[in-house]
Amino acid sequence: MKTSTIDLLVDLINRDSVTPEDKGCQERLADELQEVGFKPEWMPFEEVKNLWLRKGTEAPLVVFAGHTDVVPTGPIERWETPPFTATIRDGKLYGRGAADMKAGVAAFTIACREFVEENPNHKGSIALLITADEEGPSINGTVKVCDTLKARNEQLDYCIVGEPTSSQVFGDTIKNGRRGSLTGTLTVKGKQGHVAYPEKVRNPIHLSAAAMAELVATEWDRGNEYFPATTFQISNYHSGTGATNVVPGAAKIVFNFRFSTASTPEGLKEKVHAILDKHGVDYDLEWVLGGEPFLTESGPLTTIVQEAILAETGIKAELSTTGGTSDGRFIAKICPQILEFGPINASIHQVNEHVDVNDIETLKNIYKRALKALLT
Amino acid sequence: MKTSTIDLLVDLINRDSVTPEDKGCQERLADELQEVGFKPEWMPFEEVKNLWLRKGTEAPLVVFAGHTDVVPTGPIERWETPPFTATIRDGKLYGRGAADMKAGVAAFTIACREFVEENPNHKGSIALLITADEEGPSINGTVKVCDTLKARNEQLDYCIVGEPTSSQVFGDTIKNGRRGSLTGTLTVKGKQGHVAYPEKVRNPIHLSAAAMAELVATEWDRGNEYFPATTFQISNYHSGTGATNVVPGAAKIVFNFRFSTASTPEGLKEKVHAILDKHGVDYDLEWVLGGEPFLTESGPLTTIVQEAILAETGIKAELSTTGGTSDGRFIAKICPQILEFGPINASIHQVNEHVDVNDIETLKNIYKRALKALLT
Ligand SMILES: [Zn+2]
Ligand SMILES: [Zn+2]
Repeated sequence: MKTSTIDLLVDLINRDSVTPEDKGCQERLADELQEVGFKPEWMPFEEVKNLWLRKGTEAPLVVFAGHTDVVPTGPIERWETPPFTATIRDGKLYGRGAADMKAGVAAFTIACREFVEENPNHKGSIALLITADEEGPSINGTVKVCDTLKARNEQLDYCIVGEPTSSQVFGDTIKNGRRGSLTGTLTVKGKQGHVAYPEKVRNPIHLSAAAMAELVATEWDRGNEYFPATTFQISNYHSGTGATNVVPGAAKIVFNFRFSTASTPEGLKEKVHAILDKHGVDYDLEWVLGGEPFLTESGPLTTIVQEAILAETGIKAELSTTGGTSDGRFIAKICPQILEFGPINASIHQVNEHVDVNDIETLKNIYKRALKALLT
Repeated sequence: MKTSTIDLLVDLINRDSVTPEDKGCQERLADELQEVGFKPEWMPFEEVKNLWLRKGTEAPLVVFAGHTDVVPTGPIERWETPPFTATIRDGKLYGRGAADMKAGVAAFTIACREFVEENPNHKGSIALLITADEEGPSINGTVKVCDTLKARNEQLDYCIVGEPTSSQVFGDTIKNGRRGSLTGTLTVKGKQGHVAYPEKVRNPIHLSAAAMAELVATEWDRGNEYFPATTFQISNYHSGTGATNVVPGAAKIVFNFRFSTASTPEGLKEKVHAILDKHGVDYDLEWVLGGEPFLTESGPLTTIVQEAILAETGIKAELSTTGGTSDGRFIAKICPQILEFGPINASIHQVNEHVDVNDIETLKNIYKRALKALLT
């Protein structure tokens, strides 16, 4: 099978745009759409390339968002074909970024082109928001583009992010929101000494054990209609000098919340402090808010995309808010309706990442149907 | 002040016998006592030098035990005088091993010499049991000498170990026993994964948190007349890849019991397993018995040494079983009455280790009084 979308996807995969590199991917997208009236605006921040590519000035504005950077290859010897040489085999297209998320980017780019060619008099406007900083620190990418758009009062109405959201079958899942992420780095303070002289030590592992047991047993919320319950996970616990006869002077414990809109970062912090204080733990605690949760409730955009998926695949897509964070959290602040939809995510960030060849064209058609429903 | 004991101590300190080296210390002791009828028997095991130096064949047999090896100097620039050049300053004798335990070794060697010279017709026998492997792994030292003595049915009746046992004031403490040491290395098994997908992980930190809280809150025993209660200390807790968004697959936890004769190693192990099993923890657990507890109850030997200390210092020594393990645990298996007594231990294993010059001669006199009480 040979289509414009596959051609574009192959070209994008063959550029080894390991984060924060772009390797000309964004230029290629701009070239593709300038021919049909889109105007590129380059928004570099530090070393990161970002592209705002808009056609039209009228409302409503429909935005497709995505990233051209990819994660590193991992162990190269475990790839069956070279990761930066797009290869079709047994109905699948292999290459780093095939699913996350060059297929989505290629599909919505060609969808925009075909839609504009087929509907030259459509209403409203269309834009692409592309970054090369989604797989990295996410500091100089989407968040800064959104700040810029907000500063000049650019009004976004609908946004579709092309991330790979399908789970078992292509088309089964739309992400209509994401949980927030809140990380705490806890240092429990004690007093080092020899195990044979327990009266001279304060063992930080012991002094915090009851608090830790309570933290892991706590129900933080029960979630709500759209979100599962907030979860708490200790990811790192390090204490001890290595010597078996020395009681350590401190314990360093890192934990992370994935939280629903049923909780707030402030509320979670307060509860953690209350538990530590109740147990008399002597500690320092530093917090990093990785992302606020966001949510687009069932409504016009979710319905339109669900209908487009149903028409192209026969599948009724479910709305879901599980999984990791995404750049959607930044766009949600300036766009009232946003969702994410794209190919199957089973192989992302792994060796032999791939996407079903058949799904590529179908994905482009779903995006085009959504544009048609929103702008004609 | 210039005495035979100080002369000998200075000579021993000036030999840099960092464990497992002896640097001729034991030859020097043998030379000192061969002149008055002691017969040296060398008992080397692997690279470790050990000396069994006995006078007489009759019962009862009084043994003085000690080690000629010392711990490393630590940061040499923090020593005010060279660690292997015995230096007297302000009434103190400085040098590595001054307190732990070349003062004890020099004092009981000269005590033996003087006692034999002053009491040529004493009853019973006297022996020195000297190793150069007390500060190291303690594998080829006292334990193997004791095995050898036991194999040939050598009968020990009383033993005084010259370790530095005094705490605040010289003469205040006799160790009439030591706690046992039992170390456990616990591996809690879980399943690694991403914090955003808690349904796919089994967090070993969480799954063991309640068990850990119970372990640190458990009363293992209440001790007894001679021993403080058994203590439990977690010395090391390590889990986590360093990444804040990855739930670790395992947690490694090392803990140590210092246990009294009110508990047994088997009893403690059973209780730990019962707590882990009760909480459904999936784990491996390896045990190392560092030493059994031993105890010499108040009786002839403790009374004789207490009276000798009182006569020489005016101080009533207390019996104590606190602190770390010692080679006494090996000798206790072949000797019914054993205790440890020596100089102040405040500076041991530190820079600028020292002993009070006045205490050296007093210590020799205490040992000589004990010999007189036991063998005349
Ligand atoms: Zn992605
Ligand atoms: Zn010692």
